[in-house]
Amino acid sequence: MPEKAFQDYYPDSMSFCYGCGRLNEHGLQIKSYWDGDEAVCIFQPRPYHIAIPGFVYGGLIASLIDCHGTGTAAAAVYRSEGRPMDTFPPLRFLTASLHVDYLKPTPLGVPLEVRSLIKEIKGRKVVVSATLSANGEVCARGEVIAVQVPDRMLENLSKPSGS
Amino acid sequence: MPEKAFQDYYPDSMSFCYGCGRLNEHGLQIKSYWDGDEAVCIFQPRPYHIAIPGFVYGGLIASLIDCHGTGTAAAAVYRSEGRPMDTFPPLRFLTASLHVDYLKPTPLGVPLEVRSLIKEIKGRKVVVSATLSANGEVCARGEVIAVQVPDRMLENLSKPSGS
Repeated sequence: MPEKAFQDYYPDSMSFCYGCGRLNEHGLQIKSYWDGDEAVCIFQPRPYHIAIPGFVYGGLIASLIDCHGTGTAAAAVYRSEGRPMDTFPPLRFLTASLHVDYLKPTPLGVPLEVRSLIKEIKGRKVVVSATLSANGEVCARGEVIAVQVPDRMLENLSKPSGS
Repeated sequence: MPEKAFQDYYPDSMSFCYGCGRLNEHGLQIKSYWDGDEAVCIFQPRPYHIAIPGFVYGGLIASLIDCHGTGTAAAAVYRSEGRPMDTFPPLRFLTASLHVDYLKPTPLGVPLEVRSLIKEIKGRKVVVSATLSANGEVCARGEVIAVQVPDRMLENLSKPSGS
């Protein structure tokens, strides 16, 4: 695996996301990496991420699939353009839609593995499919439709606050 | 609005959910109430529930729609059976699938209103549609397919721990 995660390349102004921002001290701070054509994220839920006792909260599962999905979308477009993730202009994605099928209860207490695969890149839209596994068993499947953040919005975010 | 929220009727053993459990001190502790045929939940995101600065984290939006949806499913089945939510046997629902369309960025700093409506009750399955609004504008739409927790699982959860 490479040293830096996809999320470590996000510009500071885009790094406050509760799910994946390295600058959000209250957040989940997930990390995603390439593993061949798939991207992988390992996350250890906290003891209070409960659905019913012993099982992982579904909203956390949705959050992991969401943020890992948009991160994969960004990394895939950099890769398709043949440029490293620290080159300009920065590419960031927002979620247009999220779908999660909960196949079986996800046990709490073990690391979760989220794996994603690009289904389609079409203009500014990227479709990402994902699985979430615990103990080697797929517990949830998801799909994220990610859309590239408009350049104008990125420019506004890159300005120092108060400017 | 009635005094007690749907979630206030859940048995203690089912009240540790990160999204809606009144006994999860780290959680969101959402509250849902009937408003005619719709159910409504008002939630004030915390300052760190950020997607990009100024906007609400999509995973939180998914979590609100999810927990409010399963709460609505339970309340609707009690109502369809003509019995109050504190009668036995208790009914609780898990999410089989969750879909969210993010229609526009949701502003951070104002209360969010989630409204849900029952689309279908079929056996142990309930389909719930939902909208999430900020400042009176719908920012996201969702659908939850909720499935009644098996009686056996409820019985196990009702036993004192260690028994």
